[in-house]
Amino acid sequence: MSDHIVSAFTEELESLSADILRMGGIVEEMIVDSCQAVLHNNLDLAADVIDRDPQVDRMEAEVERQIVSLIARRQPMAHDLRSVFAALKVSGELERIGDLSKNIGKRALNLDTAVSPAMRSGVARMAGPVSRQLHQVLNAYASGNAAEARAVWETDDEIDQHYNALFREMLTYMIEDPRSISDGAHMLFMAKNLERIGDHCTNIAEFVFFQITGENLVQQDRPKQ
Amino acid sequence: MSDHIVSAFTEELESLSADILRMGGIVEEMIVDSCQAVLHNNLDLAADVIDRDPQVDRMEAEVERQIVSLIARRQPMAHDLRSVFAALKVSGELERIGDLSKNIGKRALNLDTAVSPAMRSGVARMAGPVSRQLHQVLNAYASGNAAEARAVWETDDEIDQHYNALFREMLTYMIEDPRSISDGAHMLFMAKNLERIGDHCTNIAEFVFFQITGENLVQQDRPKQ
Repeated sequence: MSDHIVSAFTEELESLSADILRMGGIVEEMIVDSCQAVLHNNLDLAADVIDRDPQVDRMEAEVERQIVSLIARRQPMAHDLRSVFAALKVSGELERIGDLSKNIGKRALNLDTAVSPAMRSGVARMAGPVSRQLHQVLNAYASGNAAEARAVWETDDEIDQHYNALFREMLTYMIEDPRSISDGAHMLFMAKNLERIGDHCTNIAEFVFFQITGENLVQQDRPKQ
Repeated sequence: MSDHIVSAFTEELESLSADILRMGGIVEEMIVDSCQAVLHNNLDLAADVIDRDPQVDRMEAEVERQIVSLIARRQPMAHDLRSVFAALKVSGELERIGDLSKNIGKRALNLDTAVSPAMRSGVARMAGPVSRQLHQVLNAYASGNAAEARAVWETDDEIDQHYNALFREMLTYMIEDPRSISDGAHMLFMAKNLERIGDHCTNIAEFVFFQITGENLVQQDRPKQ
């Protein structure tokens, strides 16, 4: 294979990875903004998050189109094939994170304005750790840092603990004041969406680790409580 | 291209589609069994559904591996490329349906034995329509029937209505008896999982329709209430 062809392939891969990082940036902001909308009962912001989702969908479709064309034309092997495959999987995960953030935005639109600030801030508190997970795993993807990808994968448990604590907290509000049960149910779904976003970050960490090392992160090695 | 090569490619595609239908069969049974486990508080059956999920994951990984190899070797175009792409997407959707059914099984293990039969049967009632959606869309995939795929896509609204009614029903149980709030929350998540399985069936319908016709089903055309 000539240098010219090799470098054209590398350029295509880099452009693909830049597209994915752009997608990641948009999605990261959607997580933060959807939770800000919940915290401050900001309906405009919630609507704005919902409006950003179709762009993420289009970006994923475009990445997929590029990848299918790239595999057919270049027939990549070994590390290159892993890079293309990781790009396909990461963009799919980002699309789902966008979708989950959109759903938080939709629920924010339907909350009773009287929902207690304690409930609102409970959900919003999860946004920080979850969006940081995404930020860190995208850094690992951008820099090809396997150790950083593994670090994200290992700390998924913290998000789960956060979610479990929040779940119990919400139930106590609902038991104390049955009028809050309907909003509490929406809050539980929002918290669940954030926990699932954490799971998607873990999936991304697995794909990034595999891309870089050619090895799988093994479930048994994860420090799980 | 010689007949020999064409027919080898067709054989590969058929083998891929057979694998996907096998995956679909397992997943369909997981939906039904997880809801039966909820209805009859059958913990063995719930555990059994959970145990089946890794097999579905392995099948998806194997389908992906075959597809990447097939695109690289055969460089399919037009309808063939659409078939390969549909296989990739459909197997991904089936993996997620398996995951959601597993989650219903996990929650079934953690329900209080005292949960009212009305709540249990509320969730179980959704299993019928949802698993029928999956069955029908797999038929459409197997037979290449675009009209049948469209029919599944058009009736997603029924599942949504079913879910919304169930959501309200569960809330009333929770309000009537605050001791049921914790189990009620688990039930809401199970119902939500079933609604999401319905969404995945709709996604499959879109991929199948695109594979057969080369055209997209357009959101605006769906009869939505």
